[in-house]
Amino acid sequence: MSSRKPLITAEEFNEIKHADAPFTEYYNFGIEEIGYASCVVRLPYDIKHVRPGGTICGPAMFALADFSMWLAVLSAVGKVPLAVTTNMNINFLRKPSETDLLCHTKLIKIGKRLAVGDMTLLAEGDVEPCAHVTGTYSIPPRS
Amino acid sequence: MSSRKPLITAEEFNEIKHADAPFTEYYNFGIEEIGYASCVVRLPYDIKHVRPGGTICGPAMFALADFSMWLAVLSAVGKVPLAVTTNMNINFLRKPSETDLLCHTKLIKIGKRLAVGDMTLLAEGDVEPCAHVTGTYSIPPRS
Amino acid sequence: MSSRKPLITAEEFNEIKHADAPFTEYYNFGIEEIGYASCVVRLPYDIKHVRPGGTICGPAMFALADFSMWLAVLSAVGKVPLAVTTNMNINFLRKPSETDLLCHTKLIKIGKRLAVGDMTLLAEGDVEPCAHVTGTYSIPPRS
Amino acid sequence: MSSRKPLITAEEFNEIKHADAPFTEYYNFGIEEIGYASCVVRLPYDIKHVRPGGTICGPAMFALADFSMWLAVLSAVGKVPLAVTTNMNINFLRKPSETDLLCHTKLIKIGKRLAVGDMTLLAEGDVEPCAHVTGTYSIPPRS
Repeated sequence: MSSRKPLITAEEFNEIKHADAPFTEYYNFGIEEIGYASCVVRLPYDIKHVRPGGTICGPAMFALADFSMWLAVLSAVGKVPLAVTTNMNINFLRKPSETDLLCHTKLIKIGKRLAVGDMTLLAEGDVEPCAHVTGTYSIPPRS
Repeated sequence: MSSRKPLITAEEFNEIKHADAPFTEYYNFGIEEIGYASCVVRLPYDIKHVRPGGTICGPAMFALADFSMWLAVLSAVGKVPLAVTTNMNINFLRKPSETDLLCHTKLIKIGKRLAVGDMTLLAEGDVEPCAHVTGTYSIPPRS
Repeated sequence: MSSRKPLITAEEFNEIKHADAPFTEYYNFGIEEIGYASCVVRLPYDIKHVRPGGTICGPAMFALADFSMWLAVLSAVGKVPLAVTTNMNINFLRKPSETDLLCHTKLIKIGKRLAVGDMTLLAEGDVEPCAHVTGTYSIPPRS
Repeated sequence: MSSRKPLITAEEFNEIKHADAPFTEYYNFGIEEIGYASCVVRLPYDIKHVRPGGTICGPAMFALADFSMWLAVLSAVGKVPLAVTTNMNINFLRKPSETDLLCHTKLIKIGKRLAVGDMTLLAEGDVEPCAHVTGTYSIPPRS
């Protein structure tokens, strides 16, 4: 765990989210923690994301990971506009319990041009993850 | 292009979708074509998926690819319950034009246990794709 | 197929390869074709890459794809030093026939900073591919 | 860390390796640790894997990860023949120091049909990894 402070607060991030990613309102994500280059984000359990049988659908898990990656990148580079996802690789591992999902994110590279993150998704209270994701972000040149 | 006939019709698939994946209603996907182990699916342009600036958000592209992969698998193996995505790898390539997205899917492996698909997403009328996806499905043993 | 001419010849590439990637001599790759942003490369069948039973090992397939991606990038951007692979995603699809492998590569994005390629590997004479790969290259700023 | 014992010893694995994967002799991998569903494997520094400038080449990193994944799978399921890699996704993160590489592997899913592993590669003594890999293995039905 890094001892550096995150370069963005939840309030600042929520403003950016509101302006740049209104589509994320559909998911009602909650920010649990922000560290430097790391975060924990919650996807509240909602029947609109659930398959008969109780599994949270893949696209909602993807949306959670994508949102978390964005937050982790900004926590490490600050309020950089136009940072964009270039690659996401997601492995679905097992069915989560029928409750909120948490996504634990840690950046494993913070370069000048690319950041790479490692994400583990699991239902709150579960020991074993339901999905694992790695993602890459392209960071624009800073002037 | 295979000359074999698809093992599912759009009507049959829509019934399964309605029962097993009600969350997909949010996207209003349209089935353009079904072949054997292949399909073309449309994501209608909708402001709810769009970022300021006009880009369709990543999670909507992922949802389109995931849905298309499911349809292509059923077109090749028939109405198999419980087939599930195990891996998706998505590369975001460029910003699409501000219109409907089309996902062209072709399975490159149809095994007893795993199917692998190759998906190209592009805005209708665009020549260059906005995203490329490969996905893996686990097919349950048939009794 | 692009009508543009490739920005590198086989001779020029072989010189760069000799200087920058001597480890590739182990594979004895042959360049079959170079187009603009595309190429076909051969991995000669050699017992040193083969598992009992006749399958070419995964690392040799990976090496073939990685080499091909490099060539395809240089065919599109010219003799740029320091271009490096940042991501490779490989799906192993089926056992190839016991003969040379061919890797067909096409770039699906050629950006200022990133190039993305799509590669299909198959044994010479086979109809169905043994592996499919997508790869990303980081292209350094040009001065 | 699991308290279960690994289902294979280094001696047993080396015998299987010798019979089934003679191509791995080229790398001279050393088994540092075997746990249940986990392992640490060493790639000794060797000029034959090195690019001018001192970077270990991508194919050697891939080979290390692929070998490690195989060992971790057998440590969790025992001496199962015919387990095969189906997918590997590798992110190259930074240049390692010029010394041996270590690959730390942990399985994040051990299913009846699929196992998924998480691998971190770093040069001995380095704090930051040079590559991160996720891999999937298909496990044949046991009779």
